[in-house]
Amino acid sequence: MTAATPRTTVGIIGAGPAGLLLARLLHRAGVDCVVLEHRDRDYVERRQRAGTLEQTTVDALRDCGAGERLDREGLFLDGIELRFGGRAHSIDFASLAGGRGVAVYPQTKVVQDLVGLQLADGPPLLFEARVHRVTGTDADRPVIHYTYQGEERTVRCDYVAACDGSMGVGRQTVLDHGGRLFGRGYPYSWFGVLADVAPSCDTLLYAHSPSGFALHSMRSPTVSRLYLQVPNGTRAEDLADEQIWDALYARFEVDGDWKLRRGPITAKSVIPMRSEVVEPMRSGRLFLAGDAAHVMPPTGAKGLNLAVADVLVLSRALIDLLRHGRPALLDAYSDSSLRRAWQAEHFSWFMTRTMHLAPDQSPFDTRLQLAALDQLVSSPLATAEFAHSYVGQRLEGDHV
Amino acid sequence: MTAATPRTTVGIIGAGPAGLLLARLLHRAGVDCVVLEHRDRDYVERRQRAGTLEQTTVDALRDCGAGERLDREGLFLDGIELRFGGRAHSIDFASLAGGRGVAVYPQTKVVQDLVGLQLADGPPLLFEARVHRVTGTDADRPVIHYTYQGEERTVRCDYVAACDGSMGVGRQTVLDHGGRLFGRGYPYSWFGVLADVAPSCDTLLYAHSPSGFALHSMRSPTVSRLYLQVPNGTRAEDLADEQIWDALYARFEVDGDWKLRRGPITAKSVIPMRSEVVEPMRSGRLFLAGDAAHVMPPTGAKGLNLAVADVLVLSRALIDLLRHGRPALLDAYSDSSLRRAWQAEHFSWFMTRTMHLAPDQSPFDTRLQLAALDQLVSSPLATAEFAHSYVGQRLEGDHV
Repeated sequence: MTAATPRTTVGIIGAGPAGLLLARLLHRAGVDCVVLEHRDRDYVERRQRAGTLEQTTVDALRDCGAGERLDREGLFLDGIELRFGGRAHSIDFASLAGGRGVAVYPQTKVVQDLVGLQLADGPPLLFEARVHRVTGTDADRPVIHYTYQGEERTVRCDYVAACDGSMGVGRQTVLDHGGRLFGRGYPYSWFGVLADVAPSCDTLLYAHSPSGFALHSMRSPTVSRLYLQVPNGTRAEDLADEQIWDALYARFEVDGDWKLRRGPITAKSVIPMRSEVVEPMRSGRLFLAGDAAHVMPPTGAKGLNLAVADVLVLSRALIDLLRHGRPALLDAYSDSSLRRAWQAEHFSWFMTRTMHLAPDQSPFDTRLQLAALDQLVSSPLATAEFAHSYVGQRLEGDHV
Repeated sequence: MTAATPRTTVGIIGAGPAGLLLARLLHRAGVDCVVLEHRDRDYVERRQRAGTLEQTTVDALRDCGAGERLDREGLFLDGIELRFGGRAHSIDFASLAGGRGVAVYPQTKVVQDLVGLQLADGPPLLFEARVHRVTGTDADRPVIHYTYQGEERTVRCDYVAACDGSMGVGRQTVLDHGGRLFGRGYPYSWFGVLADVAPSCDTLLYAHSPSGFALHSMRSPTVSRLYLQVPNGTRAEDLADEQIWDALYARFEVDGDWKLRRGPITAKSVIPMRSEVVEPMRSGRLFLAGDAAHVMPPTGAKGLNLAVADVLVLSRALIDLLRHGRPALLDAYSDSSLRRAWQAEHFSWFMTRTMHLAPDQSPFDTRLQLAALDQLVSSPLATAEFAHSYVGQRLEGDHV
């Protein structure tokens, strides 16, 4: 270690939504921090990920000054629609979830908005800063080791926030120090398409059908985002456009005159599904947030929102310790975040298991899925519970 | 067919709770019927089955004059308790389920009470009347063929109610006429014991533990009824009394000073778990009710109650047609009963899957179970929905 090792209070690894939002929250509270991102700016700003923001996520982005374009371009939904057994069922958040709802706004734009703010206003954000290890997490001053512009560098931190995803150094550090990984796969993937056509309706449609799951979503008033359940191993080039539209049409079909709008497909990708949780979400002075700690299938739209919840809690906990000398929130961070994460894992698993057809599924299993969906739309308590879970719980300490 | 073939309006096969209650309801409405039971009276009155009666079941038994001993000896519960992660959580039906609750009263006594009433007051109840087939269900007058006191006999009916369980002639008749059986097994069984010792507490305890599921119930103030999850293939003689008590003790253990009362074990049995539904629940003029149509694992305490719900609906439907010439309820019987049955199947599957440890279960799966249970006790909406599902839905047409 050279004498000239730079220092920061919180070293943040990863410039996805979690790392960027955490930097913003800490910076606004006057806490010194730096963000190190493995990839270049263009890659980070373009990668297609989630697109459904819970109320807490929307509020957090607004509160930190990243709400302007979101409020202009986001599509605020009052509910979603479930389709099964040839019928459509609306789940109305306005009446069921106390006025909370969700906004459709792509993660690419969330990242662009946060990157723009940070580059303009600080704290430091280094792209192509490749972190290869974190040392001394059990000591007073952990050190992040990274390569930047061809040089080996280090930064000494009071705390490290690892927001570097499921393949990152943060998770590995926790696992190397006795952490435990819980996980499972799924016997199907999502085939996602972007199409230059207006959405077929102004809501999210989740469809259970005899040929599998489909989801209708949107990126903007002129761009549709659609997903199809496909067998694992399917490649993006395996499905021709016409096949995709025909499959979507069949899966969304209901009694009545709903029409699927078809248009030019501009992107195809296959999205694998898995569930993973790392326990604990810390190792000494290193804390995990977002995908570094937990990933889940996209069916419940929880991944991005859970990452935001993590960093909201983590930022409050760090500020409470650094500004007021109170360690209780930071000490509780792993346990409270894991409880929330497992609830989200359960919801995502439930949504996934209930809406998709597994290859080895028996006719009994299919009937059970339909019974679960029937219960969900016909029992007022079950509908309300589902709506609350979908729009997301309030965090402790949130304004009502 | 001889000219002297006896006739009845409704021929009822099976003198379990479903057949006996249906006979009582029809008889009180002046509808001619007869009950044919394969086994002898002693066998029928002694077979150990369920012991938890939903409010609708209690009300039905009272309404037809079979409530006297139930009200004297039944243990009326205000809730149940879930134990997991070393902690106990009460689910209070009084506040959550609109004053509806459950009564612990063994099925053996329900059957004894109904048999007593029927033998005293009619309609005819023939034990050891072995039905071997039903013919002409698609014609106007189906015929039940049976052996009684060494003679082949027949009875010509307007309608046949098959309440003869999952191995009976009724189910087979539906399957032979194009019906479909949906089913699944489970990789564990229940080991049930009766013990001459006062219950350890005055409620049902459902325990999820690292060594598997256990249930604390009771038959009377001096007799405990206890269940342990065991691997499939376990025989009643495989577990010594001391092993059983030790396993129960470990599975019920929680923080605090709860004590398991031990006493002489008077009966041991192994109860297999399966889920089955037959669609439709009729073939022409033959209607299935109870286990003939659907069986489910005992975890949700639904089997007996669903049988009662079936015959409540079926009796109303038959009376509406026979007395008032209105066929709508009978025409709707299969669909409406199947919807209720699948909801109960889903609830029973959920309870079973969430509380038991499967042999191939991963640590992730166990964490998901604990998350589901955590959600169930910590979300007020989820708790209320669970309480409503447990105490059972009201039937359409029930008094409020």
